[in-house]
Amino acid sequence: MEKLIIKVDGMSCEHCVKAVTNAVNALPGIESVEVDLKAGTVTVEHDPAQSPADKIKFEIEEQGYDIVS
Amino acid sequence: MEKLIIKVDGMSCEHCVKAVTNAVNALPGIESVEVDLKAGTVTVEHDPAQSPADKIKFEIEEQGYDIVS
Repeated sequence: MEKLIIKVDGMSCEHCVKAVTNAVNALPGIESVEVDLKAGTVTVEHDPAQSPADKIKFEIEEQGYDIVS
Repeated sequence: MEKLIIKVDGMSCEHCVKAVTNAVNALPGIESVEVDLKAGTVTVEHDPAQSPADKIKFEIEEQGYDIVS
């Protein structure tokens, strides 16, 4: 497992938290997803062999948010 | 039908628009619901005999938002 901290733009409410959390959780090899609305971050513990960082970031973008880093 | 303009606090994104629109639309006697995120308003055309203003406001509060007026 690796820990990935993604800076995300546009998450503004608890609905956004749910949308991002559910989308990332649906990927394989995800151990945990934590969204910090104030910090604008998504912290993911993942198996990079199953779900690499790029795939996770793509999934978040698919929900309508912008990846800052 | 009567037109009701409710000022609502806390609606921040398209998920909020959906949550409020769906909740109000589920009430009886609702002809239309329009959410203006920038203005923070919900405009409802309703039959007050079926769904009075108080009931509509209560439903919006139930979704986690504050009624300003």
